[in-house]
Amino acid sequence: MSEVSSLQKARYSYQPKLPALFAKSGLRVKAVDGAATSCVGNPGAIKPLFPNSFGRPIVSFQAGGVPEVKPLKIGVLLSGGQAPGGHNIISGLFDALRKHHPESRLFGFENGPGGLVKNKYREIDAALVDRYRNTGGFDIIGSDRTKLESEEKHIIPAVENCRKLGLDALVIVGGDDSNTNGGMLAEYLLAKKNPLLVIGCPKTIDGDLKNEYVETSFGFDTASKLYSELIGNIATDVNSAKKYWHFIRLMGRSASHITLECALQTHANIAIISEEVEAKKQTLKALVEEMVGVIAENAEGGRNFGVVLIPEGLLEFIPEMKVMVQELNEILAKEATAFNGLATDGDRIQFVSSRLTQASEQALSSLPVSLRVQLLMERDKAGNVPFSKIETERLIIDMVGARLKEMKAAGKFKGEFSAQNHFLGYEGRCSPPSNFDADYCYSLGFTAAALAAAGKTGYMAVVRNLSLPHDQWQPGGIPLTTMMNIERRKGKDMPVIRKSLVELDSAPFKKFAGQRDSWKCVSAYLCPGPIQFFGPSEVCDRTTITMELEASSR
Amino acid sequence: MSEVSSLQKARYSYQPKLPALFAKSGLRVKAVDGAATSCVGNPGAIKPLFPNSFGRPIVSFQAGGVPEVKPLKIGVLLSGGQAPGGHNIISGLFDALRKHHPESRLFGFENGPGGLVKNKYREIDAALVDRYRNTGGFDIIGSDRTKLESEEKHIIPAVENCRKLGLDALVIVGGDDSNTNGGMLAEYLLAKKNPLLVIGCPKTIDGDLKNEYVETSFGFDTASKLYSELIGNIATDVNSAKKYWHFIRLMGRSASHITLECALQTHANIAIISEEVEAKKQTLKALVEEMVGVIAENAEGGRNFGVVLIPEGLLEFIPEMKVMVQELNEILAKEATAFNGLATDGDRIQFVSSRLTQASEQALSSLPVSLRVQLLMERDKAGNVPFSKIETERLIIDMVGARLKEMKAAGKFKGEFSAQNHFLGYEGRCSPPSNFDADYCYSLGFTAAALAAAGKTGYMAVVRNLSLPHDQWQPGGIPLTTMMNIERRKGKDMPVIRKSLVELDSAPFKKFAGQRDSWKCVSAYLCPGPIQFFGPSEVCDRTTITMELEASSR
Repeated sequence: MSEVSSLQKARYSYQPKLPALFAKSGLRVKAVDGAATSCVGNPGAIKPLFPNSFGRPIVSFQAGGVPEVKPLKIGVLLSGGQAPGGHNIISGLFDALRKHHPESRLFGFENGPGGLVKNKYREIDAALVDRYRNTGGFDIIGSDRTKLESEEKHIIPAVENCRKLGLDALVIVGGDDSNTNGGMLAEYLLAKKNPLLVIGCPKTIDGDLKNEYVETSFGFDTASKLYSELIGNIATDVNSAKKYWHFIRLMGRSASHITLECALQTHANIAIISEEVEAKKQTLKALVEEMVGVIAENAEGGRNFGVVLIPEGLLEFIPEMKVMVQELNEILAKEATAFNGLATDGDRIQFVSSRLTQASEQALSSLPVSLRVQLLMERDKAGNVPFSKIETERLIIDMVGARLKEMKAAGKFKGEFSAQNHFLGYEGRCSPPSNFDADYCYSLGFTAAALAAAGKTGYMAVVRNLSLPHDQWQPGGIPLTTMMNIERRKGKDMPVIRKSLVELDSAPFKKFAGQRDSWKCVSAYLCPGPIQFFGPSEVCDRTTITMELEASSR
Repeated sequence: MSEVSSLQKARYSYQPKLPALFAKSGLRVKAVDGAATSCVGNPGAIKPLFPNSFGRPIVSFQAGGVPEVKPLKIGVLLSGGQAPGGHNIISGLFDALRKHHPESRLFGFENGPGGLVKNKYREIDAALVDRYRNTGGFDIIGSDRTKLESEEKHIIPAVENCRKLGLDALVIVGGDDSNTNGGMLAEYLLAKKNPLLVIGCPKTIDGDLKNEYVETSFGFDTASKLYSELIGNIATDVNSAKKYWHFIRLMGRSASHITLECALQTHANIAIISEEVEAKKQTLKALVEEMVGVIAENAEGGRNFGVVLIPEGLLEFIPEMKVMVQELNEILAKEATAFNGLATDGDRIQFVSSRLTQASEQALSSLPVSLRVQLLMERDKAGNVPFSKIETERLIIDMVGARLKEMKAAGKFKGEFSAQNHFLGYEGRCSPPSNFDADYCYSLGFTAAALAAAGKTGYMAVVRNLSLPHDQWQPGGIPLTTMMNIERRKGKDMPVIRKSLVELDSAPFKKFAGQRDSWKCVSAYLCPGPIQFFGPSEVCDRTTITMELEASSR
C-alpha cells in the first residue's frame, strides 16, 4: 500500500454509523410506497416530459424484507465537483452489497459520466475500497462534468455499456444537473422497457440540493466547517492585529447557504446573502454603500478592522448584473463560433457590448476591465459563468476603498481602510469528511443499494431525521422529478432540478438576521477550530447550525 | 462569559504538559551556569556593543531550588505577528508565578511594545487567563510592531513604566527583531545598574528563529500543519478533478522552512526552496524554465495538473532581484520624504528606476507593472518589503503560462495549462495551537519565570529535547547575544539576531532533495488532514518532520 498520513491511517478504522434498520437488517428490508408526488414547479410542462416516471410515490423502508435474496450488480459514478464523503457512498454501497449477497458486484465508472459513455470502468473490490474509507476526494474513480444529454452521443452508449456489464442499477452521485440527467435517463429507460434502474445521491458542498425530504446534500457539513475554521482563525487574527478588513469570498455557486452557515458559525461583522440582495433589489452601488456605512461606524469606535463574507455567486443576484449575465449567457451560447474567433479581450468586450441591451451594456461597463474579461471567460458545461474565477471580493474592496477615499476627502470618514482578500473554495471540496458526512454518505450508499434491491428507478436516495441520533435516521427515496421545474439553460427552456436557495423566511436566515446587528461593530467572533474526529461528541458529531435550525422549525 | 465554540470550551480543560522538573518542583529549581558563549557572527563588532551582557553562560535548570521564595512581579508583552501558542506562554507564566508564591503578580502590556512605551497594561488574573487557555491569537493583550529602538522615545519611558509597576522582569515574546531589541534593552539596563531583568521567548510561525539551543520557534508546528492540511486537501482535489495546476504561495517572510515542512508533509509535485535558488544563483527565468520542464513532463504523461509550493519571500533570494530589492530598500529609507511626496505609481517607478544601478533597473523593469507597484509599497517597521502583499505566485503563473504558450506554438508542448493561485498565510497565524505548541509554550512560560526567579537577564527562554516525550524536555536559557551578527537595516549596519535560513546540508533539506524527484510526475500526495487534539497519540502529538529530522541528525 502506498504511504498515507497518520490521520488517514487512523480514519481507516472508523466504522461509520448507520440507521438502526440497516444496522440490523442490511438490505433485507421492505420498501413501502407512500403518497403520490408532483413537482416543485411547472407540473404542466414537466409531466408530459416524464410520462413514465412522473408522480411516483415517496418510498420508505421498514423491517420485514424481501423473501428472495439475489445478487445485485451495481455501477456507480461520481459527477461534477468533489464533495467530502463521496468515497463513503462507495464504501456504503460496497458493504451493503457484500452483506446482501456474496455474489453481488460493484463497478465504478472512471472519471465521471464520461467514463460511462466511454465504457471506462473498474470493479470495486475490498482492497480498493479499504484504501479510501473515510477519506476526502473523488480520486477512487475520478469525476468529470460530462452531461448525459444527447441520446446518440451519451445515452445510447451509456445504456449499452451498462447492459454489457449486466448491471441491475446505475447510481449517479451528483448535484442538481447530474441528478436532472439521471431523472431523464430513468424516463428514457422506462420508455424503452429497459430494466436498468437509475438512482441518484445528493452531492454538493453548496448545500443547494435540499428540500422537505433531502435535509442536506453531503459535503456541505465538512466544507462549511472547514471554511468556518479558517474564517474563525482569520477573525482571531483581525482581533489581535487590529489592522485589516478581511474580505473573504466563499465557494457556493449560486446559493448562499455556505456563507450563511459560516456567518452563524463565526459571527463575522458583515455577511452578504445573495438571495437577500436580490429580494431587496439592491444595486451594486447600494450594497457597497451599506458596507461602507458599517466600516465607517466601526472606524468611529476606533475599529479599523473586521471580517466580511461574500458568496461567490453574488454578482448574479444583483438585479442589473443578473440580467446582464443572462444576456451574456444567451449571446455566448448563440454566437459561440463568432465570439470564440475574436482575438483580444477588447474585441470580445466590444462584441458583447454591441449586442447587450442598453441597461446591461451600462452594467457591464460599470465594472473594471479585469472583471469584464472574467465575465467573458468560457462557460461551464451547463452554460454558466465559472464564478469561482470571478474575483468579486476584489471588486468590492476596490469600490469600498474608492468610496471611503471620497468620504475621507470630504471629512466624513476619519478611519483607515486597509484590506486583505481571500477566496475559500478548493481547500474545502476534498477535505477528509467530518464524522457526520462519513456517516451520512455511508448511509446513503446503503439506501441507494436498498432502492436498487427494491427495484426502484428515477429516485434519489435520502436519509431523514439527520439532526437526531443516527439510530433514528430514516432512509428512503424520492422521485427525481419531484424536484424539477422549467428553467432557461443555454438559451432554451429545460426541465431541471431546482436549486434550493436561501429562503428569507427560513429558520437559519431569520436567526442570522436577528443576530447580525449585534456582530456588526464588535468582535463577537467564534473560533470553531479544526474538524475533530475523536473528541467529545459535542465537538465531533455536531451537524451544521443550518440543519439544526431547519430541523427544529419543522 | 461571552459565547465560545464547542471546541474552545473543550480545549479550556486541556492541561498542557510540562518538563518533569517543572511538573515536580515548579520554580523551586536551581539555575546552573554552563559554558561561556560568543555569537554567530561578527563577534569583534558585537562584543563592544554589549560590554555588560556579551559572553554570558548557557543556563540550565536542576532539581534543588532556591532557599528563599519571594513573590515575583513580571510584565509580559507580545510583539509582532501572531503565532499559535502565545496565550499559553501567558498561562504558563501565570501558573508558574501563582504556584511559586501567592503574592506574585503578572501584568500584560497591551498591544505590544507600544503599550509598554505608553504604559497601557492590565493585570492578568485567573478569570482572564482562563478565558484564553489553549486558544489561538494574541488577543488576550494584543500585539504591535513598535520597535524599542530610540532611547528617548522608547527605552526611557518603557523602563520608567516597569519601575512604576515594581517589575522584577519583563518577558518579551517575539521574533528575531523583538528579541534583538530585548537584548539591547537588557544591555542598557545592566549599564545603568537597573535590576530589571529582560527575558525573551522565541515566537514565529516562520520557524527561522532556531539554533542548537532553540530547537524551534513556537507557532511553526501549528501553522505548518494547518497549511499542510489545506495543501493536502487541494492535492486531493487536483487528483480528483485532474484539471488545474495549483500554485500555492506560503507565508514565511524570508526562510523557506514552512514550504519545506509542507513539502515533506504533502509531497507536492514542485516546491521551491528560496535558499536553494540563491545557492544555485538561479535567475527568475531559469527558475521558470525548470518549472515549465516539470509541467511539460507531466503533460507528456497525460497529467495536466499538479501542485506547486512557493515561499512568499522567494523574490528576495533570486540574485538579481535580491540586489534590486536591497537597493530599493536603501533608496526608500534615504529618500523617504521625496518618494512619499510622489503622486502616481508611474512617478514612483520613474523615481526609483533613475536611482537604481543598471542591472537592478533591468530586473525591476522585467517585472509586470502590477508587481513593480507592489515592490514599492510602504516598508514594514524594520524597513523591509511587506512580502505577504507581493503576489509572486501570480507572477510565476503568468511567466509559466507565457512560456508554455510559446512552446505550444512551436509544437514542443502538447498539454493544457490552466492554473489556480492561492496564498496561505493569515488563516494559520491564529489557529488554535496544536497539542505540541500548547505544551511547548506553556513550558516556555514556566522557563521564562524560572529565569526571572534565578535573576537572569538578556536571556531567551529555551526548552530542549522537544522530539522526546515531554517529561524529558530540558528547560534553560541562552544569552540573546549568542544569536547576533551584523546586518544592514534601513541603510545602516546593525547588530541583529540572525534569521536561521534553510541549510542545504540540513537533514530536512536533504530528505526533501532525496525524495522530490519521486513526487514530480505522480500523485504521491499525502493528506495530513485537520489538526487533531483528542485522538491517538501518533495523530495528535507528533511534531513537525523538520524537527524530527533535525533531532535525529544531532
